[in-house]
Amino acid sequence: MKLVNDLDFQNVLAEYTNLINQKLSSYLDKSFCLYEQMYYCVMNGAKRIRPLLLLSVCSDKNDALPFACAIEFIHNYSLIHDDLPAMDNDTYRRNQLTCHKKFGEANAILTGDALLNLACEIIIDKCLKQNNQKYLRAAKKIFNAAGINGMIKGQVLDIESENININENQLKQIHLNKTSALIRASLEAGIILDDASESLIKKISELGNKIGLAFQIKDDIFDCDEEKNKATYVSMYGLEKTSAIFNNIVHEIYLDIEKLNGDYNFFKDLVKYIMNRKN
Amino acid sequence: MKLVNDLDFQNVLAEYTNLINQKLSSYLDKSFCLYEQMYYCVMNGAKRIRPLLLLSVCSDKNDALPFACAIEFIHNYSLIHDDLPAMDNDTYRRNQLTCHKKFGEANAILTGDALLNLACEIIIDKCLKQNNQKYLRAAKKIFNAAGINGMIKGQVLDIESENININENQLKQIHLNKTSALIRASLEAGIILDDASESLIKKISELGNKIGLAFQIKDDIFDCDEEKNKATYVSMYGLEKTSAIFNNIVHEIYLDIEKLNGDYNFFKDLVKYIMNRKN
Repeated sequence: MKLVNDLDFQNVLAEYTNLINQKLSSYLDKSFCLYEQMYYCVMNGAKRIRPLLLLSVCSDKNDALPFACAIEFIHNYSLIHDDLPAMDNDTYRRNQLTCHKKFGEANAILTGDALLNLACEIIIDKCLKQNNQKYLRAAKKIFNAAGINGMIKGQVLDIESENININENQLKQIHLNKTSALIRASLEAGIILDDASESLIKKISELGNKIGLAFQIKDDIFDCDEEKNKATYVSMYGLEKTSAIFNNIVHEIYLDIEKLNGDYNFFKDLVKYIMNRKN
Repeated sequence: MKLVNDLDFQNVLAEYTNLINQKLSSYLDKSFCLYEQMYYCVMNGAKRIRPLLLLSVCSDKNDALPFACAIEFIHNYSLIHDDLPAMDNDTYRRNQLTCHKKFGEANAILTGDALLNLACEIIIDKCLKQNNQKYLRAAKKIFNAAGINGMIKGQVLDIESENININENQLKQIHLNKTSALIRASLEAGIILDDASESLIKKISELGNKIGLAFQIKDDIFDCDEEKNKATYVSMYGLEKTSAIFNNIVHEIYLDIEKLNGDYNFFKDLVKYIMNRKN
């Protein structure tokens, strides 16, 4: 567990985060309308969990970088729309005003739309440059996970669950769709770009769901003083049992990772870093 | 000009519109969350101008149908978001309540997001099935036109122009981005899927801009009793001069179309039908 303090890991993490941030900002042209809004929402010192996970399971980082950035743009569009008054009505995000509080609702809606469309343009450009179907297979995983059978479904279920009682399975379904789907797709896309076998893709996919679920449960623990009107693991199980559930899933994840063949050291360290994060 | 009443044209128009509507509804699975919202917003007797234009310039209609539907989904997502209270705040669209009036703002935002993402999934699936770069080249035209250098840019310029004076060129820029871009892309995608030469793609692209501009000016004429706070051709030039400008562009369009080699009879009739439409 001390690996999170391991200097080598911290250096590699900083290097990849830098690579992602440079590429992300390279996609945001100053000449764009909504440039200021997109830059404000995306270039804000976020941890880049999803693109890091994607890069962590494929060897050619530069080749995979456009897909890693597209996923981060998709994640950011979803945050901007989730924060809107009609949705979660949040005032702050990552220690700054939310997009609609800073730029107004119309701009926030359009900035979210622009980021999803930009993700699409980036991925189509990459697929066009590379005459290899694996890029389209990776793209399919990402947009399936972002849509009505994944992230958007999770958001709909989340809104429908407000102020009503839901059962444990319904809560798990919300988390698996709203949070796990895109985290799972990040790993699936990365491993597909790495030319993995179908059986390895399947293993990584199942691992991705567990990582996403643990990630969301940890969020529930962090946020347990907020969102009283929303069902969370803490509101359903209490803090103690939620921590136990979290520790069990994390234990499973580590066992699964240990079983992977090949050089997945950075991936292993990254997952431990994510599970041990303090905020 | 009597071609719009030509029975053969009307039959073919009905046939292709039917083909588009059947395919659109086939993409909307009853099991989807937001199925009711998506179906309500998309399957509402719309004229399907963009998908019809796409199909009108390529010979293999069934092959092009997924792209035609993707463009219609993109068009519909943009309408749902444009109608939101923070944007144009419209109550009715196509003689029924707007999405947010019928289902609430949160659902309207998510339904728009879902339709854009669905368009992306449909196009990636089609590109994956066909191992041919032309599908990705067509996809690139569509998403470039839908994004921050096209439709979204037009919407931003449109919102910025409310209640202020803009000049003739600024108004033209709004129309070219907000409306023409996706209409142009419909024709570009269709002609690319038809394996056209670069020079023909260029001709069709320029034609697409003119058709989109004329289409929007006609809308300005239809809407001249509304949107007093928005700059339109009618508010800027008056109804008489606007009609003259419209007739000049339409005349240009017909001359350009006559110069095209090949069997573009349905395309020619479709453009005349669009320019002569009464609503």
